[in-house]
Amino acid sequence: MKAKVYVTIKENVLDPQGNAVQGALHTMGFNDVSKVRIGKYLEIDLATNDRAQAEAQLKEMSEKLLANTVVEDYRIELEG
Amino acid sequence: MKAKVYVTIKENVLDPQGNAVQGALHTMGFNDVSKVRIGKYLEIDLATNDRAQAEAQLKEMSEKLLANTVVEDYRIELEG
Repeated sequence: MKAKVYVTIKENVLDPQGNAVQGALHTMGFNDVSKVRIGKYLEIDLATNDRAQAEAQLKEMSEKLLANTVVEDYRIELEG
Repeated sequence: MKAKVYVTIKENVLDPQGNAVQGALHTMGFNDVSKVRIGKYLEIDLATNDRAQAEAQLKEMSEKLLANTVVEDYRIELEG
């Protein structure tokens, strides 16, 4: 089973990386860019067909390793 | 206009970061994980309502800054 996990910085938390990219884009002339937020995008293959089990495992992986839940949110998408 | 850009390492390119996360997940007991690939996920707000112009700008931003097109692929999604 294929899963996607999106890890993004929480809205109220400063995103220095996003700000840096925004500044670089402005320097390059892309002045329409009003906000940039950068996160992680993970594609994970799981050797199981049990959706509930996959979802529970992905939630646990996200909370224990993939996301720092103090400053990051995560979103899980299961394909199929 | 809100856009999302996904930057992922090309399939035939080694993903050391993905392999490291996969190893860590196995160590934590998530043995169902058979593959992990990690990429960047960007949320970009553009102060324009012209879809064609937004798409062209995002393509140029991706190719010039956001993705290293030698080893990375990018995918653009426009909301609305």
